Amino acid sequence: MERTVALETIGKIGQEVRLAGWVNRRRDHGKIVFLDLRDRSGIVQLIVQPRGLDKETLAAVEEIRPEYVIEVEGQVLRRDEKTVNANLPTGSVEVQVKKISVLSKAEGLPFDMGGDNLDLSLPVLLDWRTLTLRHKKIADIFRIQSAVLSGFRKAAESLGCVEISVPTIATSATEGGAEVFRVKYYDYWGYLTQSPQLYKQMLIPSLERVYTVAKAYRAEPSVTTRHLSEATQMDCEFGFVSFSELLDLLENVAVVMLSHVEETQSEILRAFGQTKLEWKKIPRLKLRQAQEIIFNETGRDVRAEKDLSPQDEADISAWAKREHKSDLVTITHFPTRKRAFYTLPDPEDPEYSLSYDLIFKGMEVLSGSQRIHNYESLVSAIKERGLDFQAFEMYLQAFKYGMPPEGGFSFGLERITKQLLNLSNVREASLFPRDMERVDFRLSKP
Amino acid sequence: MERTVALETIGKIGQEVRLAGWVNRRRDHGKIVFLDLRDRSGIVQLIVQPRGLDKETLAAVEEIRPEYVIEVEGQVLRRDEKTVNANLPTGSVEVQVKKISVLSKAEGLPFDMGGDNLDLSLPVLLDWRTLTLRHKKIADIFRIQSAVLSGFRKAAESLGCVEISVPTIATSATEGGAEVFRVKYYDYWGYLTQSPQLYKQMLIPSLERVYTVAKAYRAEPSVTTRHLSEATQMDCEFGFVSFSELLDLLENVAVVMLSHVEETQSEILRAFGQTKLEWKKIPRLKLRQAQEIIFNETGRDVRAEKDLSPQDEADISAWAKREHKSDLVTITHFPTRKRAFYTLPDPEDPEYSLSYDLIFKGMEVLSGSQRIHNYESLVSAIKERGLDFQAFEMYLQAFKYGMPPEGGFSFGLERITKQLLNLSNVREASLFPRDMERVDFRLSKP
Repeated sequence: MERTVALETIGKIGQEVRLAGWVNRRRDHGKIVFLDLRDRSGIVQLIVQPRGLDKETLAAVEEIRPEYVIEVEGQVLRRDEKTVNANLPTGSVEVQVKKISVLSKAEGLPFDMGGDNLDLSLPVLLDWRTLTLRHKKIADIFRIQSAVLSGFRKAAESLGCVEISVPTIATSATEGGAEVFRVKYYDYWGYLTQSPQLYKQMLIPSLERVYTVAKAYRAEPSVTTRHLSEATQMDCEFGFVSFSELLDLLENVAVVMLSHVEETQSEILRAFGQTKLEWKKIPRLKLRQAQEIIFNETGRDVRAEKDLSPQDEADISAWAKREHKSDLVTITHFPTRKRAFYTLPDPEDPEYSLSYDLIFKGMEVLSGSQRIHNYESLVSAIKERGLDFQAFEMYLQAFKYGMPPEGGFSFGLERITKQLLNLSNVREASLFPRDMERVDFRLSKP
Repeated sequence: MERTVALETIGKIGQEVRLAGWVNRRRDHGKIVFLDLRDRSGIVQLIVQPRGLDKETLAAVEEIRPEYVIEVEGQVLRRDEKTVNANLPTGSVEVQVKKISVLSKAEGLPFDMGGDNLDLSLPVLLDWRTLTLRHKKIADIFRIQSAVLSGFRKAAESLGCVEISVPTIATSATEGGAEVFRVKYYDYWGYLTQSPQLYKQMLIPSLERVYTVAKAYRAEPSVTTRHLSEATQMDCEFGFVSFSELLDLLENVAVVMLSHVEETQSEILRAFGQTKLEWKKIPRLKLRQAQEIIFNETGRDVRAEKDLSPQDEADISAWAKREHKSDLVTITHFPTRKRAFYTLPDPEDPEYSLSYDLIFKGMEVLSGSQRIHNYESLVSAIKERGLDFQAFEMYLQAFKYGMPPEGGFSFGLERITKQLLNLSNVREASLFPRDMERVDFRLSKP
């Protein structure tokens, strides 16, 4: 008999089926045993009445505990109206078990996983990661994440971007910063790239419009709720674009991507209590304008700061939501000295740059800029920052032989996932988060 | 005026257009100058007749050399029948230039790039990578590669696989081998993962069917035409599958992926001289059967070898093509001791394993197996190989709490690209290949 997945049972009332999955929960009601069976499609209730079952099945039922992997044969029955579970897509049916076999046993769980939510502290959530990822609510975070990825690709491809796969081992630090991981590369030392930035730019003269999903390695020396040492970026880069076109492009990609998630994952978004996103007109503010608004709104005077703090991002987002019914707000013109060397200064006011961040529901999830495309200007920018000119030899080669005006942006996959579901820490949006204290387990175990 | 890309000119005969791109070639015929303009859509011929042009345009035309970035206004004209270029999609038109401006200059090129092919030695091809990637024939390799990626995703998603993003920094060597890169991770040492293998397996109890496009880092101590130190893998993993189902799944993914490339990239495949792929029935051979065939076909006796050599792969592929009209051939049952510890031995003959490789046009492009899913067996396998049991703590956690029968496979993106286009070296199918001698440039420059 071919395998039926849990969700398909609602269309097979009266039929004999074969199911396979994990025991999500076991409840004993006298001689009757209820088992919730979980597979990739969802959860369905099994009902085991000992009468008429063979010895092997009875022994299996006796033994079965949460997370056992079982194979079941039985008949799909419509539930009594009184016992229908409206919270479960399969809540109108149950499967009357005729035969069960155990495919794989499970040790006793360190905590209960049968509830609708899994309320554990972050260290416990991560120390038992292969277990906690089994909980539907946790697995659903990563179903959302996969929809973010496909929404991003859909948007990038509709703009004519070609997907590229760029290296992560380099001989120089991407942006010249100190927060890089060193790799022993044969007899040499290399670095893990802080982003695909330099390589995606080098592809502009080849493919003109490119995108990539790539790792970003940052040796962040602190532990915050928004940083990961190994994160996933979704990057686009476009040749022959102006600053205002770039703003249109980034907002277009954001809207197509987020719309795709809403269209394909409405059930999960609802289960996480999320209401429909709004962005009829996305406000665009220069950093100084945003700071002025924050001052007027909250009385906090951040007008001399060179960047937005997390609190600033939350405040300007609250204003955009209230005044413009927008969950997105674009901030432009960050101080040139605070952005990477390849950022183009605003020709009308070179102290500020043609750079931008996108803030989504209170947190920056995208960053980018118009780039310096003139070879001599780029060389000057590298020298002015005191960076090692030699280390950028391949990068500069791309500019020496004709580079058009160009720019791009980069979304943080885990941050978008976090914001979409209102998670409290970006680590919850990473399957196996890395930070200065953890690689799977805590690094400094006593 | 909105920008027109080169390919669109064929639909705009008689119209005024604005184009932008790179000068692919310049030819002077007396006072008339022909320029081939290249952009992301292709190449179109510009014709510059000095009469009636303004001073700025005349100066620009005088200066323009290959790889200059220019912006052009002009009128699309149908070419005389005698001058139609049948080899160019835009060969029936040319653009009569009215105005040209230079957006970006280019230094003199180190070699001619105006021909249909770029015949350079591999070191030159890579030392000038940002230049050589501009050549249409080279850029097209990566258009094919992007189609391989989207074909793979299409296949994996149609099988219900959820995309995951798994870490590349770990505290143990994935398969226990010696060929790993070490990373200085804060105050600790980590490793770059040799594949996403262990993490994709850990996701089975969460999502049941997963796929990922991930980096594979291998500190290969030798330089061959088929190995990269940093490669891109396309991985699938499935729960609740048998060995024969896995063989069906891997062949299904291969066929859907390759068909997608053929359907969407026929023009590039033709330009590379490739004929339609064949795989009506993909032969499946145990290693020992394949070796017997090779002996019968060629007289080379490899029947005692534990693996197929590159020559063996070419020979068995030639046989499959001739006897079964198939560009694919699946080889199974490699010796258990030659495969990774997590490979399930064949219960009927444990010296051999439920493993497989897929050979495509003479080269292995996929590898995989049914896995050991029983916790105790897995612990024994790790101990038998003398691996550090502690290093697999998180991995083993997934098996301790109920793991179904499962398996999967992994395609090498660069190898498939190489085989699709009959490239002679896998480095040609990597944008910026890494090997023991090269990270962008040669590491040991004199």
